[in-house]
Amino acid sequence: MQFLTKKCLKHSLFIATILITCFAYASRAEVADVPLTPSEIIAQSTDSDWRQLQASDLLYLTLDSGTIIFELAPEFAPQHIANLRTLVGENYFDGLAIVRSHDNYVVQWGDPQAGTEQARPLGNAKESVVGEYYRPRSGLEFVAIPSRDAYALEVGFVRGFASGADSERAWLTHCYGALGVGRDVSPDSGNASSLYVVTGHAPRHLDRNVTLLGRAISGIELLSSLPRGSGTLGFYADTEQTMGIISIRMGDQLPENERKSIEAMRTDTKTFTNYVKARTYRKNSWFIDPVGKIEICNVGVPTRIKGQ
Amino acid sequence: MQFLTKKCLKHSLFIATILITCFAYASRAEVADVPLTPSEIIAQSTDSDWRQLQASDLLYLTLDSGTIIFELAPEFAPQHIANLRTLVGENYFDGLAIVRSHDNYVVQWGDPQAGTEQARPLGNAKESVVGEYYRPRSGLEFVAIPSRDAYALEVGFVRGFASGADSERAWLTHCYGALGVGRDVSPDSGNASSLYVVTGHAPRHLDRNVTLLGRAISGIELLSSLPRGSGTLGFYADTEQTMGIISIRMGDQLPENERKSIEAMRTDTKTFTNYVKARTYRKNSWFIDPVGKIEICNVGVPTRIKGQ
Repeated sequence: MQFLTKKCLKHSLFIATILITCFAYASRAEVADVPLTPSEIIAQSTDSDWRQLQASDLLYLTLDSGTIIFELAPEFAPQHIANLRTLVGENYFDGLAIVRSHDNYVVQWGDPQAGTEQARPLGNAKESVVGEYYRPRSGLEFVAIPSRDAYALEVGFVRGFASGADSERAWLTHCYGALGVGRDVSPDSGNASSLYVVTGHAPRHLDRNVTLLGRAISGIELLSSLPRGSGTLGFYADTEQTMGIISIRMGDQLPENERKSIEAMRTDTKTFTNYVKARTYRKNSWFIDPVGKIEICNVGVPTRIKGQ
Repeated sequence: MQFLTKKCLKHSLFIATILITCFAYASRAEVADVPLTPSEIIAQSTDSDWRQLQASDLLYLTLDSGTIIFELAPEFAPQHIANLRTLVGENYFDGLAIVRSHDNYVVQWGDPQAGTEQARPLGNAKESVVGEYYRPRSGLEFVAIPSRDAYALEVGFVRGFASGADSERAWLTHCYGALGVGRDVSPDSGNASSLYVVTGHAPRHLDRNVTLLGRAISGIELLSSLPRGSGTLGFYADTEQTMGIISIRMGDQLPENERKSIEAMRTDTKTFTNYVKARTYRKNSWFIDPVGKIEICNVGVPTRIKGQ
């Protein structure tokens, strides 16, 4: 009883949400109300179901093999993104390298000489930025999805970004393609001069322990297919050829003709709700056992690049 | 009330398990009783905490770049594994190819000419094997882990294999490294002549929809780092160079000096329970926010190869 009076009542919202999620899970899949497949929902969507990604929120990482584009989420990590803008604006990353490819985990890039006397100076950027591991939930349009999540009380999307939340806080989740800031043991040892992207099964235990900046929109296969590093934690050994970075640019730094026009499906619409439902029920003749469940990192927000 | 009397009571075990999982989730992380890190638990383990993998359960896939070793789970897919043994025993795969690398999903191999008149004959193997998508839970030592899973009522390990279960059935889960049987739309269209391995975020919606045979033990990075195919679903286009398969062999076909001696941590021991706990609580000074949660595909069963 003490548990019920003191803890349950105090966290009544938590418990209620958990129970609702649980009963939703326990109830049988009702496939009848999912008349369309994900592709059909995309095909039938209207222009108002999509949002144009802002050039100022796009990060272009160019390698010999091509360009990877990320969308940043300044509502989650304003200080780190400001520092990243400073670094990128001063061409900090040009000529640096991919330093790590850890199988089923992350690819990381930055200065191979970081921490040594040969390290490239950070210019006008800060050496230390306080970790932005989560933020208040209030002020965000957090659209929950019905999913029993191993790590977060609730999961859903904020403006296209997969997120976790409790009653007070929200944070970006480490799904495949999530872009994060490398740091050392100290919580404020990151500054966005070392970045990583998730290239394996979602390491969700990193949620709220690292500052996430956004997510890959296109080209991630150029990073995920890199040879794995043979050093500790997948860092490339000195003797291995690391891939050099040609440049990193913000979209609004690029000349107009080099900018991609990218749209992502809005996640605060009935169309997206139907899309999640379609991804949940997999109404497709190939599936034998109706799935009826979804996990946040398996949703995927549709994007489309004009001219591709 | 009708719901409570008819459905809940009928599925009382289900509901009880869900509620226990939920309350376990809602309770605060108690880090105090996790005195060791995963590495320390491995270091302090004794020989009885490990099991020797049987040569007859190991599948060696050899490419120019090296060898990938899988462990098969005949308790889950006896008919497909019997058919695979026939194929492998007749050197069916030698000279065939990796045909698909789909980013954040799977790598698949088999006969690039499958379905055409040039397809390689299956020899004494069957053309069609009825899908082995799940099996009775009874007869298995299913060791559940405390995890709120999006897809299965319960998750845990059966003799080292990550599995899902309900009160009556158990099945292998599509975690990173899971080995499965390609099939067409018909449920009995698989025969193990086309195989795939999960190389991205766990596509758990495939659970109970495809026959899984086992899991990768070593070398998966040789497959996961392959260039992605540019065709539909990541299949290599005709113009792309596919990687040829030198051979596939069962461990007990190999001469003694080519067999690896591999051990995996037993998953039915107190040591493994402690290992899961240590992976759950991440008692490590780098972590700022105690995690206190785990997802089945993030556990990982330790293995060790003698002489490496």
